[in-house]
Amino acid sequence: MTTIRDVAKHAQVSVATVSRVLNQKGYVSKKAEEAVMAAIKELDFRPNAVARTLYNKSSRMIGLIVPDITNPFFPELARAVEDIALTYGYTVVLCNADEDIKKERNYLDVLKQKYVDGIILTNNQLSFSEVDEAGVPMVALDRVIADHIPTVVSTNKIGAEMATKHLVESGCKFIAHLRGPKGLPTADQRLEGFRNVVEQSAVASVVVEADFHYERSELVTEELLKQHPSIDGIFASSDVTAAGALKAISKMGKRVPEDIQIVGFDGIPFGEMLVPSLTTIAQPIYQMGATAARLLIKLIEKKPIEGSYFELSTDLIIRETTKGEGAAK
Amino acid sequence: MTTIRDVAKHAQVSVATVSRVLNQKGYVSKKAEEAVMAAIKELDFRPNAVARTLYNKSSRMIGLIVPDITNPFFPELARAVEDIALTYGYTVVLCNADEDIKKERNYLDVLKQKYVDGIILTNNQLSFSEVDEAGVPMVALDRVIADHIPTVVSTNKIGAEMATKHLVESGCKFIAHLRGPKGLPTADQRLEGFRNVVEQSAVASVVVEADFHYERSELVTEELLKQHPSIDGIFASSDVTAAGALKAISKMGKRVPEDIQIVGFDGIPFGEMLVPSLTTIAQPIYQMGATAARLLIKLIEKKPIEGSYFELSTDLIIRETTKGEGAAK
Repeated sequence: MTTIRDVAKHAQVSVATVSRVLNQKGYVSKKAEEAVMAAIKELDFRPNAVARTLYNKSSRMIGLIVPDITNPFFPELARAVEDIALTYGYTVVLCNADEDIKKERNYLDVLKQKYVDGIILTNNQLSFSEVDEAGVPMVALDRVIADHIPTVVSTNKIGAEMATKHLVESGCKFIAHLRGPKGLPTADQRLEGFRNVVEQSAVASVVVEADFHYERSELVTEELLKQHPSIDGIFASSDVTAAGALKAISKMGKRVPEDIQIVGFDGIPFGEMLVPSLTTIAQPIYQMGATAARLLIKLIEKKPIEGSYFELSTDLIIRETTKGEGAAK
Repeated sequence: MTTIRDVAKHAQVSVATVSRVLNQKGYVSKKAEEAVMAAIKELDFRPNAVARTLYNKSSRMIGLIVPDITNPFFPELARAVEDIALTYGYTVVLCNADEDIKKERNYLDVLKQKYVDGIILTNNQLSFSEVDEAGVPMVALDRVIADHIPTVVSTNKIGAEMATKHLVESGCKFIAHLRGPKGLPTADQRLEGFRNVVEQSAVASVVVEADFHYERSELVTEELLKQHPSIDGIFASSDVTAAGALKAISKMGKRVPEDIQIVGFDGIPFGEMLVPSLTTIAQPIYQMGATAARLLIKLIEKKPIEGSYFELSTDLIIRETTKGEGAAK
């Protein structure tokens, strides 16, 4: 195997000069650079990525810490991060931290040990001082960690307002909100948007916690509809939650959207596959991942970034679980 | 920061001795080893992962090449690989190769450059000589590359036979198979299983290609049912394909399972969320990923493996899209 020493010998320069050329650091005369490039070509020398990592303290790797890749919100996000990373010559280390602070700490350690160039954190449990001390460029995705850590989120509150308004305008008189986990900022913001609209519109409302799990949502909805049989609209805090509600309603022999209308949140692909297909607030999931990756790579490469808070728009996608205009037939 | 030199000085041994202790390579006297371990503890020395990679040519990283993490079959597989890797102190580099041979070649190169210890390949396009030449431990997951490359698959043909038998036993007289992409071994095996049963049972049958995409499957099914209105059973080559069929049937005003019964293949979570919930052949997705990861780590650590071909069982999960016994109400 050709080594950096062979290249130096062939080019009649020092090893340090070859190293400077490879890493584009420090002064090298034009003549020496040309000799090195010619030697690299002739000897078919491929600089060892690991040796360069050690020299540059850069591995051209990005860590992506998600709660759980099997939650259907995250594969598209991970795909976007990986696509952008690939374009810029970075690879992605995938970490599932299960919203477990011990796992997150362990990953932060492991990723630093491997000299990842930066980390994208989604929805983590770590305090901002811990994140800060890591001393690695970071971007927060789908949550805010601290003012000085660049952040990519979507308009959760505005999206929830759109969802609730759509239910009101489609004729709902008694709307339930199946909220996400308490303390999770995205879930709290969606609740806030829901409250804003029901209070302004003077429709009856009820809020219950259904977290983001399908089975839990099915149980909670069944219980809720027994207690309040006149509920005619449901705004669910995620599409998976909405799927659970749809299942419960169908089992109770009620019809969607004739008896009860439903709006979800997320815009994951399977919402379209449901029968009836799910009206939802779509987050620009791919764009969120891509924006976070581009932002992180700019930070890593010490390029200027335009602002540190990126709030991407959500959209109302009207399908078959509501009676509003534009519903697909 | 404490360096290996500080440890050597503190332990009154050479740097080479510390290195031998850290890497557990070469002879070190018991006394020297104890001195080094004590020095490491006292100085709170953390050996640099990257420097160790260079020395050992091992990065404690595994490459996982999948076609596309947003295909709902792969997140659970990736999760399993990552869980097992974490247990053994490895991290996972995620690569989406889109069944594009150029992307796969590029990733093979990049992963080797980073000294990944091994690679798990799912459903790739590379020839086995290319894979062989990579010179890195490999495991093939969900496809066979070559006899000497350890392989983890599920019983595709047997699963397809179970699916088709279930449709026959549930009273279907004219069964369509929405087959997966031609040339994809898993899809071909499922077709073979389907054929075996329809030929034995003397029921009418028809086969059309619907690949594994939802929209395509919806279109193909609509066309198929117009041509053959007496079809009363569908075996779809994936759950996503089955969802597309379900949507087409529902749009045409036919009922499932009363008019047409459906069985999918894969066992991904969203099958349960459909209304009616999907009868399917479940692959042990998590177990497949975990088996592949354990196998790869054994290869990496030069431990013996029990065989090189692992075929895991598929199961018939009877839900609401068929009339068979045990259907959930």
